[in-house]
Amino acid sequence: MSSSPRRVAFPGERGAYSEDAVGAIWPDAEAVPVRYPIDVARAVVAGDVDAGVLPVENTLAGSVAASYDAIAQCDELHVIGEGVVRIRHCLLAPHGATLEGIELLESHPVALAQCTAFLARHARIEVRAATDTGRAALDVARSGDRRRAAIAGLAAAKRYGLSVLADGIEDRPDNQTRFLAIARTPAVIAPGTAARTSLIFTTPNDPGALVRALTPLAEHALNLSKLESRPTGEPWTYRFFADVEHDADDAARDSALRAMCAGTRTLRVLGTYARA
Amino acid sequence: MSSSPRRVAFPGERGAYSEDAVGAIWPDAEAVPVRYPIDVARAVVAGDVDAGVLPVENTLAGSVAASYDAIAQCDELHVIGEGVVRIRHCLLAPHGATLEGIELLESHPVALAQCTAFLARHARIEVRAATDTGRAALDVARSGDRRRAAIAGLAAAKRYGLSVLADGIEDRPDNQTRFLAIARTPAVIAPGTAARTSLIFTTPNDPGALVRALTPLAEHALNLSKLESRPTGEPWTYRFFADVEHDADDAARDSALRAMCAGTRTLRVLGTYARA
Repeated sequence: MSSSPRRVAFPGERGAYSEDAVGAIWPDAEAVPVRYPIDVARAVVAGDVDAGVLPVENTLAGSVAASYDAIAQCDELHVIGEGVVRIRHCLLAPHGATLEGIELLESHPVALAQCTAFLARHARIEVRAATDTGRAALDVARSGDRRRAAIAGLAAAKRYGLSVLADGIEDRPDNQTRFLAIARTPAVIAPGTAARTSLIFTTPNDPGALVRALTPLAEHALNLSKLESRPTGEPWTYRFFADVEHDADDAARDSALRAMCAGTRTLRVLGTYARA
Repeated sequence: MSSSPRRVAFPGERGAYSEDAVGAIWPDAEAVPVRYPIDVARAVVAGDVDAGVLPVENTLAGSVAASYDAIAQCDELHVIGEGVVRIRHCLLAPHGATLEGIELLESHPVALAQCTAFLARHARIEVRAATDTGRAALDVARSGDRRRAAIAGLAAAKRYGLSVLADGIEDRPDNQTRFLAIARTPAVIAPGTAARTSLIFTTPNDPGALVRALTPLAEHALNLSKLESRPTGEPWTYRFFADVEHDADDAARDSALRAMCAGTRTLRVLGTYARA
């Protein structure tokens, strides 16, 4: 990737996994908390920060719609990199709390969806959604209430001085979240780098339209590593997000994209970047 | 569709839009509230109810992952029908409340995501997630607190005796949610009926795999009305949910599905049913 950005926006309070993602992609950058994915996109477009990170997919809970929609809404954005963060959830509570004494548990819905077995084993605990894991940990810490707990990472425990009542409570130990890095200018990557290109496209609404759009990738033996559909708002019409693997200087990529233009209604290349 | 089921499970409290869906598909059925989509699926499999409805997609907020996952988890289920419900959101509060006096607003995250313009205009109001719109309305009604409001439908206002402070607050007036009806035995539909078939499939992880899976549909001129990917849990591998349009007695459907079997790793036909 090009020179490291100085200030990088992430969605959520400090201690959220998105803050870990900033450090994973740019260890020396300053992580700047904003509220939602759309706020990350807007901060980048406005030049308030040099770059941003957005969680796009968790291996247990699936795609993060708000992040895809934020990228789709801001035409000026480029995807310049990606990072994968291992998600290890902990149950955090004020000092002196015990697992048996917890009555209310709060976390981001995506985090809750990754801990279904733990939640089922403790079905007596009331569960409440929070806007992000960092926020949940902050709220619990501020309350000082030993009946309340948050599901968040170890970084949140350290930051807010919370005790770890249970560790590794996610349904699968290989639980990971992929983040995209966004900026106002495209990435510059060295020839031969293992790369990925992210796209948004729409198709005509007729039989075979999606196959026609994707066939050029198959014909050029390019691996489609991800395909996500999101509603456009217009009932029962979709835009697709696609990730394609290739080498940085692969002529097949350019040839395939030119052919895709012919088979789609709209096609926007979000960016080509080094694979994590 | 075959004979009308007597008892139909829906996810959420009474007054949730899912209860409207039961009435839209089977006007004479008894709607039975359960908590989450997975509870609907389990109630159907266990025979506690004759059928169930699951919200699968909203035209503004997109797919409902928990419903797709519930169907994927229960091999015994068949999709036997669909229904589309117009979603008209209202701001509901106890009698005597005013819009100016509202300090806390609660609703399902998918409902909140459909009212972004309204929420932005009233950014001073704190927003909290609820498990469903019916539950949000019930909680607000029970509290009697004129500073609290719920986003839910008119049915919830009537059921819980709440005042309508604002009506039609969704971002687009053509906001709709599609529901699938599930049961233990497949639907029987008359030849020539405009039908849809729902599928789950997985593909090998190699270039062109998705195109190979979908090409038989294109070759038979069958319209793919929906394609949704969900993680399998195994990192970076997916299962796809697909909806295909055809006539009930269309031989092209059977021929395309046989060809799809050859191009996929696994293929499960969830059911063929009359289009709404």
